[in-house]
Order: sequence, then C-alpha cells, then structure tokens
Amino acid sequence: MNKKTRVSVFGGTGYTGVELIRLLLNHPNVEIYQITSRNDKGKRVDEIYPSFRGVLNNILVSPEDADLKNVDIVFFATPNGIAMNYAEGLIEAGKLVIDLAADFRIKDQGIWEKWYGVEHKSPNLINKAVYGLPEINRDSIKKSKLVANPGCYPTAIQLALIPLLEKKLISSTNIIADAKSGISGAGRNPELKLLMSEADEDFKAYGIGGHRHLPEIEQNLTYVSGENVKLTFIPHLVPMVRGIFATIYVECIKNFKAKDIFESYYKDEPFVDIMESNIYPNTKSVRASNFCRISFYKEQDTNRLIIFSVIDNLMKGAAGQAVQNMNIMMDWQETLGLSSVPITP
Amino acid sequence: MNKKTRVSVFGGTGYTGVELIRLLLNHPNVEIYQITSRNDKGKRVDEIYPSFRGVLNNILVSPEDADLKNVDIVFFATPNGIAMNYAEGLIEAGKLVIDLAADFRIKDQGIWEKWYGVEHKSPNLINKAVYGLPEINRDSIKKSKLVANPGCYPTAIQLALIPLLEKKLISSTNIIADAKSGISGAGRNPELKLLMSEADEDFKAYGIGGHRHLPEIEQNLTYVSGENVKLTFIPHLVPMVRGIFATIYVECIKNFKAKDIFESYYKDEPFVDIMESNIYPNTKSVRASNFCRISFYKEQDTNRLIIFSVIDNLMKGAAGQAVQNMNIMMDWQETLGLSSVPITP
Amino acid sequence: MNKKTRVSVFGGTGYTGVELIRLLLNHPNVEIYQITSRNDKGKRVDEIYPSFRGVLNNILVSPEDADLKNVDIVFFATPNGIAMNYAEGLIEAGKLVIDLAADFRIKDQGIWEKWYGVEHKSPNLINKAVYGLPEINRDSIKKSKLVANPGCYPTAIQLALIPLLEKKLISSTNIIADAKSGISGAGRNPELKLLMSEADEDFKAYGIGGHRHLPEIEQNLTYVSGENVKLTFIPHLVPMVRGIFATIYVECIKNFKAKDIFESYYKDEPFVDIMESNIYPNTKSVRASNFCRISFYKEQDTNRLIIFSVIDNLMKGAAGQAVQNMNIMMDWQETLGLSSVPITP
Amino acid sequence: MNKKTRVSVFGGTGYTGVELIRLLLNHPNVEIYQITSRNDKGKRVDEIYPSFRGVLNNILVSPEDADLKNVDIVFFATPNGIAMNYAEGLIEAGKLVIDLAADFRIKDQGIWEKWYGVEHKSPNLINKAVYGLPEINRDSIKKSKLVANPGCYPTAIQLALIPLLEKKLISSTNIIADAKSGISGAGRNPELKLLMSEADEDFKAYGIGGHRHLPEIEQNLTYVSGENVKLTFIPHLVPMVRGIFATIYVECIKNFKAKDIFESYYKDEPFVDIMESNIYPNTKSVRASNFCRISFYKEQDTNRLIIFSVIDNLMKGAAGQAVQNMNIMMDWQETLGLSSVPITP
Repeated sequence: MNKKTRVSVFGGTGYTGVELIRLLLNHPNVEIYQITSRNDKGKRVDEIYPSFRGVLNNILVSPEDADLKNVDIVFFATPNGIAMNYAEGLIEAGKLVIDLAADFRIKDQGIWEKWYGVEHKSPNLINKAVYGLPEINRDSIKKSKLVANPGCYPTAIQLALIPLLEKKLISSTNIIADAKSGISGAGRNPELKLLMSEADEDFKAYGIGGHRHLPEIEQNLTYVSGENVKLTFIPHLVPMVRGIFATIYVECIKNFKAKDIFESYYKDEPFVDIMESNIYPNTKSVRASNFCRISFYKEQDTNRLIIFSVIDNLMKGAAGQAVQNMNIMMDWQETLGLSSVPITP
Repeated sequence: MNKKTRVSVFGGTGYTGVELIRLLLNHPNVEIYQITSRNDKGKRVDEIYPSFRGVLNNILVSPEDADLKNVDIVFFATPNGIAMNYAEGLIEAGKLVIDLAADFRIKDQGIWEKWYGVEHKSPNLINKAVYGLPEINRDSIKKSKLVANPGCYPTAIQLALIPLLEKKLISSTNIIADAKSGISGAGRNPELKLLMSEADEDFKAYGIGGHRHLPEIEQNLTYVSGENVKLTFIPHLVPMVRGIFATIYVECIKNFKAKDIFESYYKDEPFVDIMESNIYPNTKSVRASNFCRISFYKEQDTNRLIIFSVIDNLMKGAAGQAVQNMNIMMDWQETLGLSSVPITP
Repeated sequence: MNKKTRVSVFGGTGYTGVELIRLLLNHPNVEIYQITSRNDKGKRVDEIYPSFRGVLNNILVSPEDADLKNVDIVFFATPNGIAMNYAEGLIEAGKLVIDLAADFRIKDQGIWEKWYGVEHKSPNLINKAVYGLPEINRDSIKKSKLVANPGCYPTAIQLALIPLLEKKLISSTNIIADAKSGISGAGRNPELKLLMSEADEDFKAYGIGGHRHLPEIEQNLTYVSGENVKLTFIPHLVPMVRGIFATIYVECIKNFKAKDIFESYYKDEPFVDIMESNIYPNTKSVRASNFCRISFYKEQDTNRLIIFSVIDNLMKGAAGQAVQNMNIMMDWQETLGLSSVPITP
Repeated sequence: MNKKTRVSVFGGTGYTGVELIRLLLNHPNVEIYQITSRNDKGKRVDEIYPSFRGVLNNILVSPEDADLKNVDIVFFATPNGIAMNYAEGLIEAGKLVIDLAADFRIKDQGIWEKWYGVEHKSPNLINKAVYGLPEINRDSIKKSKLVANPGCYPTAIQLALIPLLEKKLISSTNIIADAKSGISGAGRNPELKLLMSEADEDFKAYGIGGHRHLPEIEQNLTYVSGENVKLTFIPHLVPMVRGIFATIYVECIKNFKAKDIFESYYKDEPFVDIMESNIYPNTKSVRASNFCRISFYKEQDTNRLIIFSVIDNLMKGAAGQAVQNMNIMMDWQETLGLSSVPITP
C-alpha cells in the first residue's frame, strides 16, 4: 500500500474516541486525518490526553469545521443522535461511515425513538446500515457503506447466545443476562455517581427495567434465531475502569454439548475464544484487547446452562470492534492493528 | 450492669476476627478477655493491626494456652474445622459458643463432611447448634448455648428469599442467585489470586458448581419453606474489599406485591431495610454496618421477580451478625454495639 | 444530661457534611435538629445518602429557611465563603459556630482574600475566631464561640512539625511536606478529573506552587515557633477515597531524640499516636477514626529527619476534629462520640 | 530479515516476565523460543496467564531443561541471584544476556553482597556488564554482551537527575527522592501485605533507610556527575497496580532554566518526554508504554527545584527498557516493538 487511508474521528475525546485513536495510531494502513470535538475544539488532543504526547499532535476541530473532502472513512465516537445528521451526506460523497453510537443499531424506527427519546433524522438509512457484529454479519459488513457498531453489553451477550439460538437449542423466552460493567462504560461525563469517591468500593445494579441495550439485543437475537427472543437484562456497575462480564442463564430445550456447539460456530473467528471445561473467563484476561472469551457450565440435574462471556467494553465492545469492521469493509486482514496482547497485570 | 461479660475470640487475626474485635471494643456490656492466634501467638494484636493502637494492647495467645475458665462467651473466628474440637468442652463448662465458621451450619453430617472434606468431631452437637439467622431463629438463638453463625452469601441470599418461600409464593426449584462479593470474603490468606496486582481491575466468577455455601442455603431454605429448595448459585469476585450484592431471579407462582410481603415480614427487624419501589441498594450503603438492604423488580409480562440484597460480608455476613446473636443469647438489646452508621464515602 | 444539645449542619451533602452527620448521630449528647443544602433542599438526607436509611429521615432545608432560633451549635460544612455570611448573627444570638471551611483560618485578611479570591464579609470576626487544632489551642477553643476547623493537610502536617518548631530544634525555612491525599479531599464535585475512570489507577501531583493550605500551615507554624516558617508543600492525589499521608523532610539544628520530643509533647493527647522506632504509619490504620499517627526516621550521616504523619482527611482532617472541638467548647469529655475503632480491612 | 532472532525468557511468570513476553510477542524481529519457570514447569503459559490464550501456547520448562543452544538472546526476569549463575556460560556460548534483576547493577561487589545478602557468583563479570540505561550508556550497551537492566525506581529517579548532576547545576548531597510505586513493583509473591484486602485503599511508606535501589541510584549518579552523590530515598506504596511517580527535591547551586537543560539533554531520546511549564505528569499517561515523562517546578524565593518523573514500572522500569536494550544491542531501530500508545482510561 503506497498511500494510507485517511480517517476522521468525530467525537475524539470520549473514552471510545480516545481508544479508537489509540488503535488507529498503531494501524499500518490508516492515517488519522482529523479529530473533532465540540467542547474541546482548538485544543491539542495530547493536551486533554497526555498519553498521546509524542505520538499525536492534532488539533481538535469543531465538527462544523471538519474537512471531510479528503477523508475516506469517518468514525462517529460521538453521543447518540449525532451520526444520523451526517451519515447521508458522507455516504453520498463516497465515504465509509462507522457509528460507534446507537443511531443505526435498531431497525424499528419507532422502537429507536422510544428508547432514545428523539426523532430519527435519517430514517431511510436505517435499513441500509449493517449491524457491525462481524461474527454474524461479515459479508454484509464487507459490502456496506454504513456500519452500526454494536453496544458493549450487546456484543458480550449476543456472542454468548447466537450459536445456541440459531440452532434453537435453548428457549428463546427464558434467558437471563446478569451483566457487569466497568465504569468507563458510563462515558466521560461529569456526574456525581461516576466520581471515584462514589463508585470506588461500591457495587450496584442500574438501568433496571430500562437499559437501551435491551431492544438492541432482543432485535438481533430475534433476527438470528427466527424466534421472538425475550431477555431479562440486569446491568451492574463494577468498581473498575474496563471490562464487561456477562453471566447468562438459559434453558436448554435439546440435548447438546455446549463446547462442541461453540467451538464449531466460532472455529474461524480470530477474536472469539471458547475456553476449556472448568476454565472460566475473567475481564483482565481481555483488557485492552479485542478478544471475547466464553465458557459455560451445565447444571447436572436441571436443563439450565450458564454461559460466561467477557470483553473489554472499550475494545470488542466499541473501538476494537469498529477497527475490525473497518478492516472488513476495506477488505484488509481482519486482525490488522488489533493484534496486541491483553495487558496484565 | 456492674461487671462486664468476658468474651474470648479464637482466631483473632483473620478478617472476621479483627472485625469482631472492633465491634466488641465498642460494645458497652463486654470485655475482651483473650484473643488467640496460632500463627501470631506472642505478638500484640496492635502489632499486626495497627488500627488497634491505643485501644487494644492484648497479647495473642496460642489456643492451647487460652484461659477459658474466666470467660463467659467464646467466639470462633477460626478456619472451618476448629470450633468443633472445642465446643463440647466449652458448653459443658457453661460457656456460650458462637462459631463464625461453618462447623455447625449443616445439619446433615454426611453433607457437611462431603463439602468440608474432613470428619466431623462433634456430631452430637450438630443438632444442638442453632443456625444464627436472627430473622428466622430468634427464639431458638435466645435459648441456645451454641450458635452457628451463617455464611456471608447465605445471609444475603436467604434474607431475600425467606419471606417468599415461607409463603410459597415462588417456585422452590427455579431460583438463580447471581452473587458478587468483595475480596475480603476470601479471607486473609497469602494466595496469588488474592494479590492486589491480580484482583484489582478484574472481575470473575468462581466456585462454579461447587461453593460450600450452596448446601447451607438450600438446607435452610428447605427448612423454612417445607419444600425441597434447589438453587443455582454463581458467586463472583468484585475488585473491592467489602460488600456482598446478590441479584436473585425467581419465578412467581402466585400473585402478590413483593413490597407488601417483605415489609410485613421484616417490619420489626432492626437490621433489614426494605427499600421503596424504583430504589435499588448498593454495597457502600451498608459498609461497616449490620444492615441488609433489599429491593426488587417485577417484570411486566413475565412471572419473573428479581430481588436485590446487599450486606457487608464482614458485618451482617459475619462479625456483626455474631454480635447480634450474642445480644440475643444474653437477652440484651439486639442492636447493642451495632448502631454505628455505614461509612460513606 | 436531660436534654440533648441541638445542632444544625449547614451543607450536609458534601463529604465532610455527611461524615459529620454520621458522627453526630453516634454522639450521646447531641441531637441533629436541622441540615441544610442549597442544591438538594426538599429531599430527604437518606435519599441522597442511602447509608442513612433507618437512622436519619431529616428533610434538607434551604439555608434561608433554616430555623436557627432553637439551635445551640451550628456547623458549617459548606464551601469556602459561606460561613462568613452567617457567623456574626449566630454568635450574637448566642450560638456556637464551627466552620469546617476556610473562612476564619487565616488571620491576615489580605492573605485570605488573595488565596480565596473573594472579599471577606466578616473581617472583624477573623481575630475572634480560634484555630481549632486542639493539640495547640485547647484552652482558647474552650472559651471560643467561633472555631475555624483546620484543613486536612494542615492538620497532618502541623501535628508533625509543632513539637520540633516550638522547641526550635529544626530549621524553620528548610521544610518539605510531600503530601498525599485520597480523592474525597477534592470534595463531591462533578468534575472530569475526579471521575473514577480518570482517577483510578493514576497518581499525580497537583496544586503545585499554589495550594490554599500553604498559607494556613505557614501562618500557624510561624505563630507556634515564633519564627518565620517557610514550607515547600507538594500535594498529590492517591487513587483511594480516604486518607492523608504526609512525608515531611526537615533539617535538624540541634541534637535531640525525636521520639522523646514527640512522646513528651503529645503524652496526654487522646488522638495523637507516636509510634515506636521502625514502625511507620499507613492510612488504613486510621480510617474512619480521629487518630493521627506519627513516626520518624533520622538519617545517620546527615542532619535530615523524616517525619511520617497520617490522618483520615474526613475525620481528624475535618468532621472528627470538628466534633472534638465541639466537645471542648461544650466542656464534654473530648473523645465523646469519637471512640470508634478504625475500619480494617 | 529472513530469520527471526530467537530469545529465551528465564522466569516468565513474574510480572516483569509476563510483560516482557507481551512485548516480545509484538516485536517484529524476534521469536520466543523458550520460557522457563521453576515453579510452573510443565504448564502452559496461557494456563497461568489466560491473557495469552490464542497468542502463545508455549510450555514452561525448568531452567535446567532449557535448550540454550539454539537461542540468540537470553532475558532473565528471575529473582535476584539467578542470572549470575548462568551469565558466564551463556556469554561464552555467544549469547546476549539481559538481566532484569539486580545481579550486575552494582559495580562494587562488597556493596552488592551487603545489600543482596548473598555471595556473588560471577564477580569477574560485574565489570563487563553494562548498566542498561540507554539515555546515558547507549554506546556501551551497543557493544555489550551482558546488560544489567536498571531497577524501576532508579530509572525514574536517574532520568530526572542526570542532566542536572552531569552539568553540576545542583548539590550532589542534598537530594530527596520521595517515590511512589504501584503494587506490581513488589512482584508476584503471595505475601499478606500484598493482598488486595490489605493494600487497597491504603497508602504507606516502606523500605525506609534500606531500599536496595538506593546504592544503585547513588552509584550511577556518582559515576555520571563525578561527585559523591548522596540521596534521601523514601519509597511509598500506592493502591494501584502500575506506575512510578518520583517527586524529587534538589538544591540549585547555579542559575539555569531547567526546561532548557532537560530539553537539550533529551532532545533525541525517543522515550523521554520533557513537559511544558505548568504541566505535570501523571502515571496513567505512561501506562503500558515505555515513556518517561518529566517536568519541574522552581520555587520563587529559594534555590529549591522540584522534579516530577513518571514511568510504568513494568515497562520503562523493567520489560520495556529490556526490549529497548535488546534493540540497541542488535542494532535495530530503538523503538521497535515499543511504539504502542499508553492505555487510557
């Protein structure tokens, strides 16, 4: 490759944005052309994130001032409701668009508007957008101009359920996802409940009966399984920065060996690790990496199967998956820029 | 009261031991007469725990050298399998015994020996021991000479289930307890997996398919409900020091209003807090206190009820409950020495 | 005592406020009559801090609506610049006032206004206020109507230096205080830098060349020593919630045994613990207690002495010291309500 | 390059070992041929560190069984006192040796034996070993067969002092290094004091008057400055996993602008970042990277200069620097395998 592909990052100062920039800086095929920030325009990125000192000296521009002409790919690491204002123009201009927010994740406009509380500005694009979970949509992603990058909980939970639901091995209406997330999942927002003095040494549930990731999960699992999937989804906040751990309880309706099903389903997937029996995943084992690790436990005297799934919420749950999607869209090797080993300790 | 009651603490240097000592030092009716430690005998307690400097200068004695003649109450904050060697002699000598370990929690000797891996040394005492969960056994505790202080997970989980099971409002065989504990629950043991470098910023499940607290929970819930209770119990380790959070999923078999049931059941309990609708508990709200806080969420279109229960594992889950049991056995006000407010932030 | 003394807490929802309320609830001689909060008026305290559920159901009132007639003591746990508007009226009405903020800590009005950036509204009260460090000002506190409760860093640092400066054993102009604080010292403010995602797993210096606690420390040490004390003061932020650790480097100008000097100076002090040689303090050993623990290390071949001093910033560094001051002002036993043992682990 | 260079890691299961392996896996020029572990021989690396699942399936061999014939470079990430038993034979066999432990850091055998408590087994190699701080010894490292990789504190502290001492701008005998380290610096040892229940939410000093890094620092600074450097070195333990922060207090004996001195000294260094005035470093800004960031504050009315220096103790303080040394010894680009951006948040 002679010339690097130019990418622009909208919303570069949130946690998914900064993680995306970190990955793009290590990616051999791309050049970060521009980073936007409404609140911090005019500042240098490395002023806000000194971790970039010495490697990135871009100046943040206002989204309005973004020079999009010379850009090939635009990532939106913005809050929900931003990408839908830009996507159509960008696509018409021949750019690829990857939205790390939720604007194009839900196919039913009414459901989207109910959960996100605003009117959708690009309803005609909703069906053109591809849900960017490569493990189920790789071919569609490859052909797409607009990818809706999945949410963090949805990624961890769907990867744990798809092989079973697709084969109709479990009840589609008796599923419990008890999920736990590090606090970076709540974003870089100056809220009291996110203060270290509040959140450290505390554990709690939240979003009970109303987390926006629920319709996203149910929609896609319904699509995959061909059945109406209903989920009980209880997210919890863990006093750590990164990581999602999902403990998922399902009811088996057929006899099967979970390990065989999962290993067969994911045998060619570079980022899904099916663990041996009696080995269970932990979030640190995927930190700063794009891996999802999955294992399971089958109760002896019942038909209950328990599935454990971990990801780094900012990586496979956001920026890492976005880069994976870019690689697929560009027909590059899928692991490009994503091969670094998890950080431990 | 002219003369203070003399208590001895066996195993005073583990986390439940040190928490018990902290509480006893603030208790108006007792005097700590002696603290034993096999590993640290000859040392001062405040040498090992400088938090006691200025308030406690006892020298740790070997259990063999303990002068038990002049003691009224003996607490065992020892590992499992110790109290059963001493209890009979102590009770015969007229002492009250409270075991914070598991020696007398399980009524079926065979089950106990299977889970704890050793022969029981005082099988004849097993049935004399009272399971020290005051909310269900207060009268028996009052008359008992030997109290088996419940485990931490069992306390949080049972308090969340007893009112429903006792009234047969939920299925006794479709219960999932997804439980999360701070790392102090693993005790003061020099193990790699408990190092801060390992456990900090990590979340994982453990004890899958084999946690010793499972038979304890099932036994007591079976006793309370009169039905054969089966539980799926998945404990997880949270990167924090104190606190247990249990998320419990049950299947309602009758129509009822959970809040009414719980409020009615616990209306006179000093340490059980039933929260309002739409308010959910967090572990920090009970830190260093003897409270258990409970709330719930009823799914709209299913018969699934979700119950949230939090305690401080070292308090209501161990030392606090032991002091509560002592107060009951001695016919003192039940909250004596336990009225301090949770520490926040 | 037949009737409890009525206290009012202004600014009850910050971290020093909530800690003060926790202590007052356990204090045998006082009744919390009223708690104010400008931002949260109309809400119940236990709505904001569920740790108070079951023990405190006061409704927060606006400061304007506070009924001060029936109150004996008013604590200000407000931001800087509030107490100075109320103090005069309260004192004239016969109330005792304890300000946990900085309004009356600095005797030189010009210096105060320079560092705090506003005009002082009660300059005539500045000299009537007593600096509430009981270890040096006990008699004045006893007679005072207005106590300026010291800052957290100043408490830890001054207690470590006063015995040496008062006896002119060290240079008054070659002092370095390298201080480290848990993040609760920054208050309950929704700022990005205080988010757990930012502050956890990070360590940094801050306030370099300009922390407001510097003039407070220098003023009082100058007063105590009779010499012009100059300090290098570098505060750092520790990824933990509570605790201050000060490492202080001084130059000995006489021969002396530090342990003898400190032990003699603090021999009757209930809250200052001078540790043995070769034992050094840690912040957890004072958590949730009013203790200050001090030890030292004398270099062999130089005249450098290093002093280590720890407190809980919310206790001896704020609310605990305020209660100690109240006890002195009221001529109660000085340790009343402050005898609980540090929380560990 | 057709054939990759083969490296062996001795002691691959400690924290410096696992970090070294992580880096070597991302290094384009090397192949990990063998990893040894005395305690875990026969196990797979990814069994102990699941973070390696999918990227490394080596089986740990006993050091005795290591096949060293086919290896080009041997890293020792072992405890102190191991490398000195192997180095001579390896060098004679034409291998390059990089010791991440302390065996060859101290030039004076007597001092080494006093501080490390054992007899040195290869005294004749001591002077052949090069102290692997590239910023001062790059040329010697390039020619060396045996590199003594510096300690973590010594790296952070020396980089902050060398430019000033070399130019004799500061007093060589009035230096205070108040240093703070994350707990991974204490290694992967099952000790009580390293448990999360003990270390979390705690801050303390340790090694007072006797840290082994002191003679290492003094020796090298003496060598660089040509004067007898004496240091006061007080290390502290921070409740976080990674990172070193050194706050260094020096006495200026000449007039100079620190920024100019430092920028000029390090202008060609790829891993030393001299920050602007009024910007101070934080440990998270170098996490998982090989950067050292330095800034300073000059007091106005005194001759005191304060220098702030941060590194990741496992990277520039250990494994990262070892890879940097390998790159230099092999005459590869110095930043090879070390270009990943710090992880934040």
